[in-house]
Amino acid sequence: MKIVILGGVAAGAKAAAKARRLLNDAEIDLYTDDTHISYSACGLPYYIEGNFEDYRQLLVRSPEEFEEKNVHIHLRHRAVKILPVSKQILIEDLEKQRAFLTEYDKLIIATGARPVIPNIKNVELPNVFTLRKIEDGIEIKKKALKSSHATIVGAGYIGMELLEAFVKQKLKVTVVEYSNTVMPVMDDDMSKLILEQLNTINQGRFEILTSELVTEFSGDLNGVHSVKTGTGKEFDTDFVVICSGVVPNAEIARDAGIELGVTGAIKVNERMETSIADIYACGDCVEEHFFITGTKVWMPLGSNANKEGRTAAINACGFDDRFHGILGSAVTRCLNLTMAMTGLTEKKALFSGFKPVSATVTKNDKVGYMPNVNNITLKLTADSQTGLLLGAQAVGAGDADKRINTLTTALLSKMTVQEFCKNDLTYAPPFSPTIDPLLNAAEILKSKINLSE
Amino acid sequence: MKIVILGGVAAGAKAAAKARRLLNDAEIDLYTDDTHISYSACGLPYYIEGNFEDYRQLLVRSPEEFEEKNVHIHLRHRAVKILPVSKQILIEDLEKQRAFLTEYDKLIIATGARPVIPNIKNVELPNVFTLRKIEDGIEIKKKALKSSHATIVGAGYIGMELLEAFVKQKLKVTVVEYSNTVMPVMDDDMSKLILEQLNTINQGRFEILTSELVTEFSGDLNGVHSVKTGTGKEFDTDFVVICSGVVPNAEIARDAGIELGVTGAIKVNERMETSIADIYACGDCVEEHFFITGTKVWMPLGSNANKEGRTAAINACGFDDRFHGILGSAVTRCLNLTMAMTGLTEKKALFSGFKPVSATVTKNDKVGYMPNVNNITLKLTADSQTGLLLGAQAVGAGDADKRINTLTTALLSKMTVQEFCKNDLTYAPPFSPTIDPLLNAAEILKSKINLSE
Repeated sequence: MKIVILGGVAAGAKAAAKARRLLNDAEIDLYTDDTHISYSACGLPYYIEGNFEDYRQLLVRSPEEFEEKNVHIHLRHRAVKILPVSKQILIEDLEKQRAFLTEYDKLIIATGARPVIPNIKNVELPNVFTLRKIEDGIEIKKKALKSSHATIVGAGYIGMELLEAFVKQKLKVTVVEYSNTVMPVMDDDMSKLILEQLNTINQGRFEILTSELVTEFSGDLNGVHSVKTGTGKEFDTDFVVICSGVVPNAEIARDAGIELGVTGAIKVNERMETSIADIYACGDCVEEHFFITGTKVWMPLGSNANKEGRTAAINACGFDDRFHGILGSAVTRCLNLTMAMTGLTEKKALFSGFKPVSATVTKNDKVGYMPNVNNITLKLTADSQTGLLLGAQAVGAGDADKRINTLTTALLSKMTVQEFCKNDLTYAPPFSPTIDPLLNAAEILKSKINLSE
Repeated sequence: MKIVILGGVAAGAKAAAKARRLLNDAEIDLYTDDTHISYSACGLPYYIEGNFEDYRQLLVRSPEEFEEKNVHIHLRHRAVKILPVSKQILIEDLEKQRAFLTEYDKLIIATGARPVIPNIKNVELPNVFTLRKIEDGIEIKKKALKSSHATIVGAGYIGMELLEAFVKQKLKVTVVEYSNTVMPVMDDDMSKLILEQLNTINQGRFEILTSELVTEFSGDLNGVHSVKTGTGKEFDTDFVVICSGVVPNAEIARDAGIELGVTGAIKVNERMETSIADIYACGDCVEEHFFITGTKVWMPLGSNANKEGRTAAINACGFDDRFHGILGSAVTRCLNLTMAMTGLTEKKALFSGFKPVSATVTKNDKVGYMPNVNNITLKLTADSQTGLLLGAQAVGAGDADKRINTLTTALLSKMTVQEFCKNDLTYAPPFSPTIDPLLNAAEILKSKINLSE
């Protein structure tokens, strides 16, 4: 039995480790064009921020640890072509610049995703970075530590995390975002609140330009010098990080005849099986079942990747496991602001055919007399006809994450807001107000459901 | 329409405020033997600890605010007897030492609970306190600030919170607990863990004596001097706080012919109606429906009291509202340790006729490379036959509270652990590991359910 895994960051590395534990005598080979495997890519902004000095803290398992367990790790080896009929893969050794064929009984594709590079003039200049791999993080940190101004293109999750990292490293920062606010994944009212709150704590340390498209970089062989936008703004910078989203590395699967989904990522079933027998896929290159709508979505996140890698390995090894889907739960932090969400936003709920109604409250996250009390703004969304909970968003310096995780469980069980109002949440002054903001929001939302009936 | 409310801390004050909002022209009278109303009793330990200087921060609404809204607050007025047939109440004015009769159309009993005073010799000595009312908190803080040693009798919620408060105020503390560990409300393994962890961070600041009964205080007119235990231990102290639990103030209801429940607290239905028409009860004097077992429990907590006060008022005003019950969710903190729980412990599950099985994990609460990472120990309990989730307990310096609130929602929806394993919790390095400890514990628990089938 020979298991071949393509890719080794989260899903691939998890699959390799799990397969090894399940099958003692299987031959396991992992090929990656990367120079590292099994690392926390989500931790790169925190490494750049200086939370820890040694990037090796990001490594979950080293290649040596894998080799000790007889898992063969082939770094700097790119998979060029999968031949499903003969169960062969054409691999290119990037160091030796030599291609060879290898065989598999079971193949697990975990090729991940790659940054989108927008159509900006001189985007190939030195010191224009993207952040995806360990080397990216090392290069960006090195550059940041000897710079005074950074430019971030895109104000989504990674853009927000890098804004925090650069501000903490005492750089001035300019964020340029094409849409009219930050964190466009959230509803407009929540995004605007984030922008307002960031501007409040700004103190001259950064600038966020919205509704601005970066059109051109200027520079020379030493690197980028300045940034120009569509409205004619121009400013000097020491370096740029492009955070304009990612696309799945699904081409090698598509070229092998494996079916892609509506999202452009690889289509898999609950067992992480692709459309071709004995080929599994997992992680950022696959699309997922979305519990709330029953449709397919592509939401490349490290937590999902780990679970999918585990499921793919269990099934590839001949056992049975299912990854059922996702709720779209996510959280991030920018400076003192937590931003978290689960399920559908109101705009996505509308788009998905629901008649959504929402309630938004801004409340203390603890009892007001406690020394570390902070605000959170919570938005709960439900279907106005039935009260079915559809999603929640939370923003604030307070403990927003706790409230969103409480909601994920409600979404998983298809709970109505009427039912959720019965919830008995923990209370003590250091942890929440007597009545939790979640229940305040739920009571208001419930009253709106009754009205529309 | 005349609404009379007896008691004014959490439930009573909430009921008065809600009734005022609902009925503009009702006459509303609130009688209490206390000198304050509408305060956060749960905040008293944090006041003693020095988190804030002015005890008035604990007051939610002042008597003056109520009077402005035409709610008549009668402090230091004790209700002596309810006469349901004539709808009268005998009230004693404690200042004027004069009794009088008043009438009601709707009566809301919110008489709360009072501390248990154990059978200890010389328990009536000065400087032997209980903590329940604002005055208690003021007296204890005043005494603590000029003392060097405090004794706490009982290591439950209040005992643990006062231990933190006194240690932060730089006192040496001795806690004496009758059972063989602290926080006996939790399972023994969790309680032992709390004791171990407290002893680890102790650094000579406090001592916790378990399996010890306080039998005698010695002292004189100036107050208690020393404490003696059943095993003959004797030690000097400057003052004592007795934290040996509370009992419901249900006697006035019982004497009026109102039915009490199996727990000894007042029996009410979902509308907070007692067995006698036009008499409602709410807060720490009533028992509650326990969602997990369908039985009645008495769990006097501020969050429940507030919700019940609201429901009682809505119904007393002629509208309709229901308080459905509780999950037994609670949280507290002692020094750097959070202790939280929801639902049944394993021992209570056994006692309730389930065949429980549990899984316990100790994990980082965040990704290991983050600077403020801490451990939490999580214990999940389910019915071994069906996988129905029964309860969860969490202890640790890490974010335990978030995990317990996530579980409350699962208990509310009667979720199995098999279903819970599908949960999609938020992930980012500052907030959780890639796979949340809750899901680690749930996966282990799920495997135990499968084995027993």
